[in-house]
Amino acid sequence: MTAVGIDAIEIWTGKLALDLAETFAPAKDDNPEKYTKGLGLKASSFPDTYEDIVTMGANAAKRLMDRNGLEPDDIGRIDVATESAFDNSKPVSTYIAGCLEDVYDGDFHHANKGERKFACVAGTQSIDDAYNWIKAGRNRGRAALVIATDTALYARGDPGEATQGAGAVAMLVDENPSVVELSTHQGYGSADETDFLKPNQQFPSVDGKRSVQVYLARMREALEDFESVAGRTHPDDYAYIPFHTPFPGMVRKAALLGFRHMTRGTDIEDGLTDEIGRQPREADFEDWDAYEEAIREYMDALKETDTYDTWYGRTVDPTLTLSRQVGNWYTGSVHVARASALKTAAETGRALAGEKLLVGSYGSGAQAEIHSETVADGWREEVEALDIDEQLARRYDLSFEEYGRVHDAHNHEKERELEEFTVPSGEFVFTGWGRMNERTYEYVD
Amino acid sequence: MTAVGIDAIEIWTGKLALDLAETFAPAKDDNPEKYTKGLGLKASSFPDTYEDIVTMGANAAKRLMDRNGLEPDDIGRIDVATESAFDNSKPVSTYIAGCLEDVYDGDFHHANKGERKFACVAGTQSIDDAYNWIKAGRNRGRAALVIATDTALYARGDPGEATQGAGAVAMLVDENPSVVELSTHQGYGSADETDFLKPNQQFPSVDGKRSVQVYLARMREALEDFESVAGRTHPDDYAYIPFHTPFPGMVRKAALLGFRHMTRGTDIEDGLTDEIGRQPREADFEDWDAYEEAIREYMDALKETDTYDTWYGRTVDPTLTLSRQVGNWYTGSVHVARASALKTAAETGRALAGEKLLVGSYGSGAQAEIHSETVADGWREEVEALDIDEQLARRYDLSFEEYGRVHDAHNHEKERELEEFTVPSGEFVFTGWGRMNERTYEYVD
Repeated sequence: MTAVGIDAIEIWTGKLALDLAETFAPAKDDNPEKYTKGLGLKASSFPDTYEDIVTMGANAAKRLMDRNGLEPDDIGRIDVATESAFDNSKPVSTYIAGCLEDVYDGDFHHANKGERKFACVAGTQSIDDAYNWIKAGRNRGRAALVIATDTALYARGDPGEATQGAGAVAMLVDENPSVVELSTHQGYGSADETDFLKPNQQFPSVDGKRSVQVYLARMREALEDFESVAGRTHPDDYAYIPFHTPFPGMVRKAALLGFRHMTRGTDIEDGLTDEIGRQPREADFEDWDAYEEAIREYMDALKETDTYDTWYGRTVDPTLTLSRQVGNWYTGSVHVARASALKTAAETGRALAGEKLLVGSYGSGAQAEIHSETVADGWREEVEALDIDEQLARRYDLSFEEYGRVHDAHNHEKERELEEFTVPSGEFVFTGWGRMNERTYEYVD
Repeated sequence: MTAVGIDAIEIWTGKLALDLAETFAPAKDDNPEKYTKGLGLKASSFPDTYEDIVTMGANAAKRLMDRNGLEPDDIGRIDVATESAFDNSKPVSTYIAGCLEDVYDGDFHHANKGERKFACVAGTQSIDDAYNWIKAGRNRGRAALVIATDTALYARGDPGEATQGAGAVAMLVDENPSVVELSTHQGYGSADETDFLKPNQQFPSVDGKRSVQVYLARMREALEDFESVAGRTHPDDYAYIPFHTPFPGMVRKAALLGFRHMTRGTDIEDGLTDEIGRQPREADFEDWDAYEEAIREYMDALKETDTYDTWYGRTVDPTLTLSRQVGNWYTGSVHVARASALKTAAETGRALAGEKLLVGSYGSGAQAEIHSETVADGWREEVEALDIDEQLARRYDLSFEEYGRVHDAHNHEKERELEEFTVPSGEFVFTGWGRMNERTYEYVD
């Protein structure tokens, strides 16, 4: 069977930055460590006034196409995953294709365009759809362009305000991929949950405590489901484990839960017995609450062990480097986590081809998906071509007052006029509204 | 290779009806034939006050599961296609799964749920995703539930007001299907168009004239793309040709264009030469406008021939019987057209197994998709089990004043309280809003 997976990745960050420790915390009269240690975030990316989900997605896609020498005819499918759509009927992928057609010869008239919505998990779902489309033999030798793009803004004063972000990840799914190969094995944990919603509204309503519980519960279900098809997992099977990262602190919780689950009945549990005892077994407890309490105590002890700390530092912490700088990109988040891990490996000279990643995606509402990927031979070249560090260094550092005005400018219900903070160059920009209130775009040289 | 396609279909109409000739036309002081002849519509379905896209989708799905003896464990994927979503993050499929879990043992926790949006073409896209998922070997013996559900309402007074509708089509995509088998051949015609939008609004903005042009242009592109992979099409290759049906008048235009295209250079064109001449060839004209004008004249003549009339009456007209009674169901529309055709065949005792359908789906914004399906052996039993005629007969016939109040009740920006017109029984109903403004549901025995 032909290998199918992610052949290329491109990341486009919103061009403004809100520094949580230096700018946000003082304005809120908070200890900066609430953000840098508690949430694990240094800054959030924001879209400049001429940026939105279309421009960020189109700019990421154009860089990806240019870098890989692709023409529109090479693309048979364009799927956009977002939970920041501004139209209830016309998909973002048509706007992005329209932008790209302005700068390339040829067109995407025979490409299947679409849009997926399921909170933050839809990017991974779109990759799966593209993989299945190729495996089903429908691609006619063409690749799929998958774009996860979001402006993750919360209402001013909302507890989620510190976890905002904006950016896009474009990925090419193709045969004989350069970055990672996917497999048919997937695990799902999915339930009808009311943890995070946007009922006819732009900014989310969030039950923060419930949201954390649901994330962990669905991840656990997904891992069990994955193991039912792929066999038992072991923490040392994976070079990195990128999770959906609403904020790094959430991943710390998920990683500990995953490590506890994966080590049960293994050499690692045995090795930790003298230090913290064995894992509680349900059969040894009279009721579920007592068992759960014992598990919590075990996990508190596990978290403090060198064994866990070393594993976490090697396998999970490297997935968080970009997230700390950009915040939550919703659909793009887990793909930013994968890129962070691969970037760390490239920077530290690690040989990664043939190694496995375990990828844990999640969307509120709620669904977790877990699958494994095999790193392909061309990963290093692809990752070294990313210019995300330069993009981050170039971001305009917002004052708190400027942040407020940018937030208002992106609020669909507020006054829209605001001077831009940065100068666009060699990119697509938002230019205004047309006669049917459609958003309009142009390419700026 | 295992056959994959649509194994079961269920249709659920909104429980209210607006009669266009008897109720709408007099209130608008219009000639009823504007609707019955011009648009080709007799009535529109509307949701009662306790109905919405979730209840209609869940009710169609439950009937489908009950009739086929399915349990939640038999379903590995639930995708909803809609352009009437009421949440920008949480997908409708989670609400529908939540409803179904209330009445079945077991759950859908290991099923991949999703939501697709691309105007009216997303239902067909979701069927394709399900087909690809099975063909890629990821389904673990399970089937996919695809639900196309919409409340196609326009602002009061909008020219589209006469083409409204509301209903859901649930389809089971599985191996060894009973209704139709799909193939890998598909044709796409897709462009970034501003013909029909819902920019941050519930009701659409429509450029009616442009919308008709775009529908025809994209269908033509899709047919050419389909022929590039499946070979030349011939009008007699297909038992029926179900199109997306915003209103039957639109399909009359598309069918004529399709017939003209498919007959070019065939025995049919030859046979019509004495009567209306041969089709204009572009090479014989000095400019495109003159060629187009000649094509228009040829089509005007073609439309009046017995050859075309007989073909249309046999191949296309039977796809419109349900649409005339229910209006536009957006994502469900082309699937209602397929069901109409199969229902006609069953009612007239036609042998259909092994025959082919050519299916033309379309979504504004804009994209057409054309593919062919082969009718499977179990089609008749499945189609005869539909109770859509009884559902239509049971609809409450709205007065114009009542219609206005129902429209307001479903308007997200208006007062929501209104007594129901019908009594729910053995179905899911909408019950109100929860603490995070989520919509809540229950099953009524």
